[in-house]
Amino acid sequence: MKKLRLKSEANLSRRTFFRNAGIGTAAITGIPALLTSCADTEKTKTSLTNYFSQDDVVLFQGDSITDAGRDKKNELPNHSRSFGSGYAFIIASRMLGNMADKNLTIYNRGISGNKVYQLAERWQKDCIDLKPDVLSILIGVNDYWHLRAGRYDDTHEVYEKDYRELLARTKTDLPGIKLIICEPFVLAGTTAVDESWLEPFRQYQEIAARLANEFDAIWVPFQKAFDLATETAPATYWTGDGVHPSMAGCQQMAKTWLKALYQ
Amino acid sequence: MKKLRLKSEANLSRRTFFRNAGIGTAAITGIPALLTSCADTEKTKTSLTNYFSQDDVVLFQGDSITDAGRDKKNELPNHSRSFGSGYAFIIASRMLGNMADKNLTIYNRGISGNKVYQLAERWQKDCIDLKPDVLSILIGVNDYWHLRAGRYDDTHEVYEKDYRELLARTKTDLPGIKLIICEPFVLAGTTAVDESWLEPFRQYQEIAARLANEFDAIWVPFQKAFDLATETAPATYWTGDGVHPSMAGCQQMAKTWLKALYQ
Repeated sequence: MKKLRLKSEANLSRRTFFRNAGIGTAAITGIPALLTSCADTEKTKTSLTNYFSQDDVVLFQGDSITDAGRDKKNELPNHSRSFGSGYAFIIASRMLGNMADKNLTIYNRGISGNKVYQLAERWQKDCIDLKPDVLSILIGVNDYWHLRAGRYDDTHEVYEKDYRELLARTKTDLPGIKLIICEPFVLAGTTAVDESWLEPFRQYQEIAARLANEFDAIWVPFQKAFDLATETAPATYWTGDGVHPSMAGCQQMAKTWLKALYQ
Repeated sequence: MKKLRLKSEANLSRRTFFRNAGIGTAAITGIPALLTSCADTEKTKTSLTNYFSQDDVVLFQGDSITDAGRDKKNELPNHSRSFGSGYAFIIASRMLGNMADKNLTIYNRGISGNKVYQLAERWQKDCIDLKPDVLSILIGVNDYWHLRAGRYDDTHEVYEKDYRELLARTKTDLPGIKLIICEPFVLAGTTAVDESWLEPFRQYQEIAARLANEFDAIWVPFQKAFDLATETAPATYWTGDGVHPSMAGCQQMAKTWLKALYQ
């Protein structure tokens, strides 16, 4: 995540510049705050557009959270029904609507219930063959959930090994690919998740973060975003069962994902 | 639409204020443009939040464009599958995610193929009984399309009469309701729509605008938004058949709808 840290420093300097740019001398209440948030807004627009190149192919991969009820008989790019009703639909619609001149091709290939080894099994068809320039992955919650429920035997060590192999293979087959690794998340105090999930699940989150670092990927910190969100509404407002996001949760994810691309 | 004009004037004054607030004297390139767009951003947040009250019930009504493949067996509020993959999902997710403290209840009750008389037939169950505080309607394209295709006999005069009756009944049964009337739209140069649609269809658009004025509704100018959008990408990028929006089109609609609420 070296590149990201450098970008953050540049942004910080820019914010500091605006904050110090003589605005304090203007006797207008509210202007400094306005300017700070304004610099952020301008930054978003510019950097999001710069991140994607002309004719980029973008792929969303993952489990049910990415799947979001998409129509698997019509796996078309840039198509509502092929996206379902989740964070990927919100993000992709926004990218297609706001960057019409880029001619982006965006796919959703999330499949409900998937663990990382199941991504690997369908990787040739559902990733490599699509030749993505940008790949966003969210995977891990089933690797822990199914183990916990006694429906699966492999531990976080297998998750790490399989995930690393998957990413290495992706980089080998598609050397120029840009990776976005999303943090798997859970919220306790919900219908399926309680406090006893948090510590063991943190191992999976740390693995995903470590791999993001190793593979120079953009890291999308969903857990932190949801933890912060619970300060304004209860956990069940953001995800009923602690795993699958509500509409509010989807919006929270879309916002966090988009923000991660310019941090 | 009297209230709207007053709001626009207030916004204009606010923009002028920021533009003239001594920023021209600061020798910092780019700041004036930044401030103008910044004022707009702040305005959005403030006004959108002000428009909705605590515990508001919000209802999206219309035809297939609103329906967007929603699951009609599970007509739950604030629920992804009950929203389908369209503009209403993008808007409602954003409202629920960004105004979590408001405790909003948002329904989608669009049904594919509906004309205005079909809304009227199910209005008690699908509007009045839900007791919405805010109602957004998009209806009209099938009233013209089905007439043109010889599958329906009534003209724009019936559309006007039925639509006026529906709105009057709504105001009588729910006196405090806030109305948002969306302009039906078409784009020529697509698989189903050619130039010969435009003039006759304009009658339906003028009727919808007239009713928005009569019923003091917020007016959402979708046609203008799509016409502008075709300057950056062809009509088929925004709607393949000229009637149903693509994902880019859904985003365009969501943006236009949200913008209309603070203009």
